[in-house]
Amino acid sequence: MNAELVAVGTEILLGDIDNTHAKFLSNELAVLGINVLYHTAVGDNPDRMRAVAKEAIGRSDLVIFTGGLGPTKDDLTKEIVCEIMGIPLVKDEEVVRRLLYFFKKLNREVTTNDPKQAMVPQGAKVFYNDHGTAPGLAIQKDGKAVVLLPGPPSELLPMYHEQVRDYLMSFTNSIIVSRNLNVFGFGESQVDMVLTDLLKNTNPTVATYAKESEVRVRITAKAENESACEAMIDDMLAKVNEKIGPYVYGIDADSLEQVLVGQLLERHKTIALAESCTGGLVAQKITSIPGSSGCFGYGIVSYSNQVKAHELGVQEETLNAYGAVSEQVAKEMALCAKQRGQADIGIGITGIAGPDGGSEEKPVGLVYIGVAVNGEVTAHQRFLSFGRPNERQSIRNRASMHALSLGLDALKQL
Amino acid sequence: MNAELVAVGTEILLGDIDNTHAKFLSNELAVLGINVLYHTAVGDNPDRMRAVAKEAIGRSDLVIFTGGLGPTKDDLTKEIVCEIMGIPLVKDEEVVRRLLYFFKKLNREVTTNDPKQAMVPQGAKVFYNDHGTAPGLAIQKDGKAVVLLPGPPSELLPMYHEQVRDYLMSFTNSIIVSRNLNVFGFGESQVDMVLTDLLKNTNPTVATYAKESEVRVRITAKAENESACEAMIDDMLAKVNEKIGPYVYGIDADSLEQVLVGQLLERHKTIALAESCTGGLVAQKITSIPGSSGCFGYGIVSYSNQVKAHELGVQEETLNAYGAVSEQVAKEMALCAKQRGQADIGIGITGIAGPDGGSEEKPVGLVYIGVAVNGEVTAHQRFLSFGRPNERQSIRNRASMHALSLGLDALKQL
Repeated sequence: MNAELVAVGTEILLGDIDNTHAKFLSNELAVLGINVLYHTAVGDNPDRMRAVAKEAIGRSDLVIFTGGLGPTKDDLTKEIVCEIMGIPLVKDEEVVRRLLYFFKKLNREVTTNDPKQAMVPQGAKVFYNDHGTAPGLAIQKDGKAVVLLPGPPSELLPMYHEQVRDYLMSFTNSIIVSRNLNVFGFGESQVDMVLTDLLKNTNPTVATYAKESEVRVRITAKAENESACEAMIDDMLAKVNEKIGPYVYGIDADSLEQVLVGQLLERHKTIALAESCTGGLVAQKITSIPGSSGCFGYGIVSYSNQVKAHELGVQEETLNAYGAVSEQVAKEMALCAKQRGQADIGIGITGIAGPDGGSEEKPVGLVYIGVAVNGEVTAHQRFLSFGRPNERQSIRNRASMHALSLGLDALKQL
Repeated sequence: MNAELVAVGTEILLGDIDNTHAKFLSNELAVLGINVLYHTAVGDNPDRMRAVAKEAIGRSDLVIFTGGLGPTKDDLTKEIVCEIMGIPLVKDEEVVRRLLYFFKKLNREVTTNDPKQAMVPQGAKVFYNDHGTAPGLAIQKDGKAVVLLPGPPSELLPMYHEQVRDYLMSFTNSIIVSRNLNVFGFGESQVDMVLTDLLKNTNPTVATYAKESEVRVRITAKAENESACEAMIDDMLAKVNEKIGPYVYGIDADSLEQVLVGQLLERHKTIALAESCTGGLVAQKITSIPGSSGCFGYGIVSYSNQVKAHELGVQEETLNAYGAVSEQVAKEMALCAKQRGQADIGIGITGIAGPDGGSEEKPVGLVYIGVAVNGEVTAHQRFLSFGRPNERQSIRNRASMHALSLGLDALKQL
C-alpha cells in the first residue's frame, strides 16, 4: 500500500510552524508497513489545494491530510476532498452535540461558522475529537482511502493513538520491524563500500545514514508477524557484524554516552575525566544521561597549564618538556583524574580545537586522549580536522566521541 | 516571484529525520519577499524524484532542492535536475581540489564514488561547501531558477547565510536588513505583550521568536539601500529598548556565552566554575568560544558530595546541614571555584535536573546558582521545570543560561 501526506496551511509555507506531523505520521506508517512516497504542504488556497489533493488521491492508495478542518472560510480540506471524490456532506448529530457542549464550557456562543464543522462526508468514519472541535474523518471510495486529521498536535496526536492507528491497521497484512546499528570510527562511504552487496538486499533492507560523526546502519524487515521479522533481522545482523562488527557500539542506542553510562552502571564501575580541549563536553554528555551520578563523580576542565599542574596534578616538568598537547600530558591527566575521582577509569583529553594555536608540528585537530585503567595508562593520538573553517565545535565533538569510545574499550579491560 | 521547496531523501519519508529546512527556508524566503507555494518531500527514487522535480520546475519560478547531493548512487538530485533542464554536468576543478584536500586530511583514499561530487551543471553558480563535500549549486535557464543545497543542516545553514542568501537577494529589487536582539529572562508571550503595538508595524517589521529558553526580537527593514534600512532599524531599536532594554543582552549575538566571553576578554577578567547539575555544560559553552582560554582556566564537575568536599573544598558540615542542593552549597561552590581558579568571578551551580531526585521540598527543576565576585557571594534560586516529561536536558540548559547571565551581571560589578 502506497501512501502520502498532505499538510494544509499557509502558516507552514510562511515558516511560522514546522510540519511535525509529516515525521510523526511517516514513522507510524513505516511501522505499519505502509510506504510513504510523498510529503506535500500547500496553503489555504482553493485552486492550489484542489490541484494537490487531486494529484495525491490520483497517485496514492492512502492520503492523509492534516490541517484545514477548522471553522473558518479558509479551512477547505474537507470540502475540497469531498468535491474531488464526489461525496456529499451530511450533518453528524454527535459532532453537533459535542460542539454545543464544547462552546457551552467555554461560555461562547455558537457562531454561524461553527456548524460547518458538524458536516461530515456521507458514509465516512468519524474520529470524534476529545481535544478540540474538528472531528477526524476517514473516507473509502473506488479503492482509495483518504483520512482527514485536525492540524493542532494536541488534537491530532491523541486522536491518532486512540483511534486512527487502529483504523489504519485494517489496511496492512504485514508488519515492519527496524533495527539500527550504531557505528563509530568508520565513515559513511567506507561503510557503504564494505556493505555494498548487503545494501542491495530487498527484504530485509539495509540502509546507512550519517549522524554527527557516526553512522547508523538500519535493517528493516517486512513479514507477516514480529517474530518472522526478528528472525530475518538477526540473520542480516550477523552478516553486517561480520563486516563492521568492531565498529558497532550499540543497537538502537541513542548515543555513545548512553551506552557507556549504561554499561558502567551495569558493571558498577566508575569513570573520571580531565578535559582540556573538549572543555567539559565529555562530562556534559555523560551527565546528560539520567542516573549518571552512579558512575561519574569527578570531572575537571583544566583549561590552563596552571590548573593542569596545581589543581589536577600534572607535573610541571612534563608540561614544560612536552607541551600541554602531548601524549605524556594526556596520560598524566588520565592518571590524575582516575586518582582524584577514585574511579576505575580515568580519561584525559588534550588537543588543539582551533581556530588558533596550531603549528606545523601540532596542527589544529591534533588530539591526545589518555586512558588509565587497571594500573596501566595509554595515549591515543587522533587527527580530527577535516581542514574546514569553523571546525572548532566539530573537532571538540569528534574528540568527545573518541573519548567516550575509548572509555567503552577501557571498560572491556576491567 | 513564486517559489517552492523540494526535500529529497527516503529518510524523511520514513520519518527518521524532520525536514527542518522547509521551515527555515520558508522563513528566509518570506523575509526576502518571495512567496513559497508548496513544500514537497520525495524519496531517493529516480522516477518519483523526476516527476516531482518536473512538476516543481514547471509551476514555480524558483525551486530549492535540499538533499540528495551526496557521493552515493542513491544521491540523484543534481543528475535529475540537469536532465530535466537539459544542462550537461562538467567537472569543477575547485571542487576536485577541495575533495582531495578533504580526503587527504582524513587519511582516506578517494573512493570511486567520490568524484561524482565534483561534477557541476555547466554555467551553474557553485556555492563551495566549507563544512562537507557536496557543493551547493544555482542554475538559471529559461526564466527558471533552481537552487540545490546539501541536506545536512551543518552544511546547509552556513552555506545559506554566507552565500545563498546574497544570491537570492538578486531576485528582489529592494534591500532587506535585519537585526536580532537577544533577550534573556523574559518569556516570548511576555515580550509579545509588551511589544504589541510595535509588532503591528509593517516596515520595519518587528517579530519575536523563541530560541531555546531565550527570545529573539527581529527587526527587519526594507528599503532601496542599506543606510536607509539601518536608519529605520535604529529608530525602531530605540522603541524596543524602551520596553525591554534590561533583558536585552546582545544584538546579533550568537549566544550568552559569546557575549560573556567577549566582555571578559575585553575587560581582562576571568571566570571559574563549579558545576553539579549542569555537569560541565557551562564550561562546555564557555570553551566553545575561540579564545576563551584567555578568561577561563578552571572548571570542576563535582557530581558527588565527596568531590564537592575533597576536591572542590565545600565544607562537609554545609553539605550535611543543608544538602547538596542548597543556597549555602551553591555559595561555597562559587567561592571555592573562584579561589581554585584564581579568577575574578566564581560561579557554582547545584540543582535537581531530574527525572529522579526531586522531593516536595526540593522539586525537580530547583536550581541554586552561587556568584562570587569582589569578596561577596550571593545565591540565586531558580525554578526551571515546566512540569513536562523528559525535561532533564531543558532544565540543565536553562540552568546553564541563568549561570551565564549571572556571570554577565557579575562582570558589571567589577
